[in-house]
Amino acid sequence: MRRERWFILPAVDSGVRVLHIGIDIGGTNIAVGLVSNGSILCKEAVKTSKGISDKKLTDDIFKVISELCKKTGVDVSEIKSIGIGAPGAPDVKNGKTGRLVNITNAEFDFRGEFKRYTDADVFVDNDANCAAIGEAESGAARGCANVVMITLGTGVGAGIIINNKLNGGFNGAAGEIGHTTIVYNGEQCNCGNKGCYEAYASVTALIRYTKAAADKNPDSIIAEIASKSGIDGMTAFTAAKKGDKTAEEVIDKYTEYVSVGIANIINILQPEMIVIGGGISKEGEYLLNPIRAKVKDKVFTKDTGYAEIKAAELANDAGILGAAMLFKYRDI
Amino acid sequence: MRRERWFILPAVDSGVRVLHIGIDIGGTNIAVGLVSNGSILCKEAVKTSKGISDKKLTDDIFKVISELCKKTGVDVSEIKSIGIGAPGAPDVKNGKTGRLVNITNAEFDFRGEFKRYTDADVFVDNDANCAAIGEAESGAARGCANVVMITLGTGVGAGIIINNKLNGGFNGAAGEIGHTTIVYNGEQCNCGNKGCYEAYASVTALIRYTKAAADKNPDSIIAEIASKSGIDGMTAFTAAKKGDKTAEEVIDKYTEYVSVGIANIINILQPEMIVIGGGISKEGEYLLNPIRAKVKDKVFTKDTGYAEIKAAELANDAGILGAAMLFKYRDI
Repeated sequence: MRRERWFILPAVDSGVRVLHIGIDIGGTNIAVGLVSNGSILCKEAVKTSKGISDKKLTDDIFKVISELCKKTGVDVSEIKSIGIGAPGAPDVKNGKTGRLVNITNAEFDFRGEFKRYTDADVFVDNDANCAAIGEAESGAARGCANVVMITLGTGVGAGIIINNKLNGGFNGAAGEIGHTTIVYNGEQCNCGNKGCYEAYASVTALIRYTKAAADKNPDSIIAEIASKSGIDGMTAFTAAKKGDKTAEEVIDKYTEYVSVGIANIINILQPEMIVIGGGISKEGEYLLNPIRAKVKDKVFTKDTGYAEIKAAELANDAGILGAAMLFKYRDI
Repeated sequence: MRRERWFILPAVDSGVRVLHIGIDIGGTNIAVGLVSNGSILCKEAVKTSKGISDKKLTDDIFKVISELCKKTGVDVSEIKSIGIGAPGAPDVKNGKTGRLVNITNAEFDFRGEFKRYTDADVFVDNDANCAAIGEAESGAARGCANVVMITLGTGVGAGIIINNKLNGGFNGAAGEIGHTTIVYNGEQCNCGNKGCYEAYASVTALIRYTKAAADKNPDSIIAEIASKSGIDGMTAFTAAKKGDKTAEEVIDKYTEYVSVGIANIINILQPEMIVIGGGISKEGEYLLNPIRAKVKDKVFTKDTGYAEIKAAELANDAGILGAAMLFKYRDI
């Protein structure tokens, strides 16, 4: 008996720190975090300037990585992997970003550049994918093997996790649910097509609905707020909370369209969790309750069960956490 | 050196027969096949009658399995797995079919019943999923890891393969692309919603377009064929091949709607191959060429590459072959 226990004890995981670096490349900002067991131990922003060289940028990032390690009392050599989440369409296979318009205005070969410093595996993926992984590892979708995270922003993006693996498709470009047709021959979309989900469910669309409603109803609270502080994605919610009927109609219209795309994804993929991200998800139940009710009307398995719908929990940290966990969600 | 070769030789695969049984349960017919290395060695239909008991049906099926084995000179004990493709929503986890309306009018516990005869693993899945596996293993999508097979029939069904695994979603009910909205507030669908893909891209919809066109254009060839032989999914194609402009317009309309759903799937999942199944896929390039051209207009990655679109190759054998390979595409 004593011998058996002797062998079991060292296998217990707790206390063992497996360290990863997650890097979230935003429009103008780069956030670097040291991650262990699904938590950010410490993080820091990297200052950058437009036109910076690949070498200088990697040097700057690695300096921050070294500082984070020093702070935490670990050696850089203990880092098992570095993950980078970047906007656009990265070259996942070769560890390069797509064009980083606001930084280098070119592709960036992170895997190649980091070789100068470390033997850690380097992964690069789309920022929407990283956010989905972050929420699946440590956020709203903790413990779910099948997750779709839909980010409602200027556009509509998605990260798809199936059986605990990221689904990028054969070319790494999957998840463009914003450019699926939901209203054949409908509103013009930026992509050139008409009737795309993004043209109806993005915050850009919500602002369009808000503006039209305010113009049409100059005596409404929504019009009053709009004329005082301008219109953003929150305007309709702020007015609705004050009992404005016009604002309620705007939210009804917006959540109706949002629910169409969510129901489509559920009918196709049947994930166990849909996570709604983007700044607007901070509206919480004001946004989610109408969406849930409208999705239920449209889902094919409404009687036998379908995905839960939750707001993202991690805000900006999802990008760092997800990037740090890329090694687990990618087979290459 | 001699010793090394001695050990290497038996590991070579060719000539080694790994045997599986695939069972395809149709509306009124059950087909059983003995499958090895992606080919059907021999197959036979099982006669059945409405209201047959579970025990009697399994006895009958197993009698056919024994005969197939005898014919091929193998012992029943050599069979590694039995897969069953059934209509509706099977209980994949427990190896039961859904209600088999035309046979027993009840669920059917294949895994439980087959235990009386064999230790082989028993898998049950949806027939659309099995067809997709069949085409991925031995048909139009041979060698592809990411495949969506879309079957255009009375309704529209789909089987989704991602990273060489079937995607049934968390509840086994994924693939209902027929009930995704493509025309918000559009045509009434049988499911209760409006504007579903199925209401525009099923053969039922094609027949509706054909009838309307024939009624509106009584001097067209399509109207002539319709009045002589009635309307089915082939009518418009037959008339178009004779140069009928009205029929061409029908095909143009139908393939336009079909392309919307295919482009949506590509934008979401980016599979490397889309396989079109169902009787209408026999129209081959007459159906596929306009679909390909219209999909190209709508795909987000039209410049960087996207899925090939092919017609199914295996017809009814896809169900047997896919069922026999379920063991490989399911993790449970």
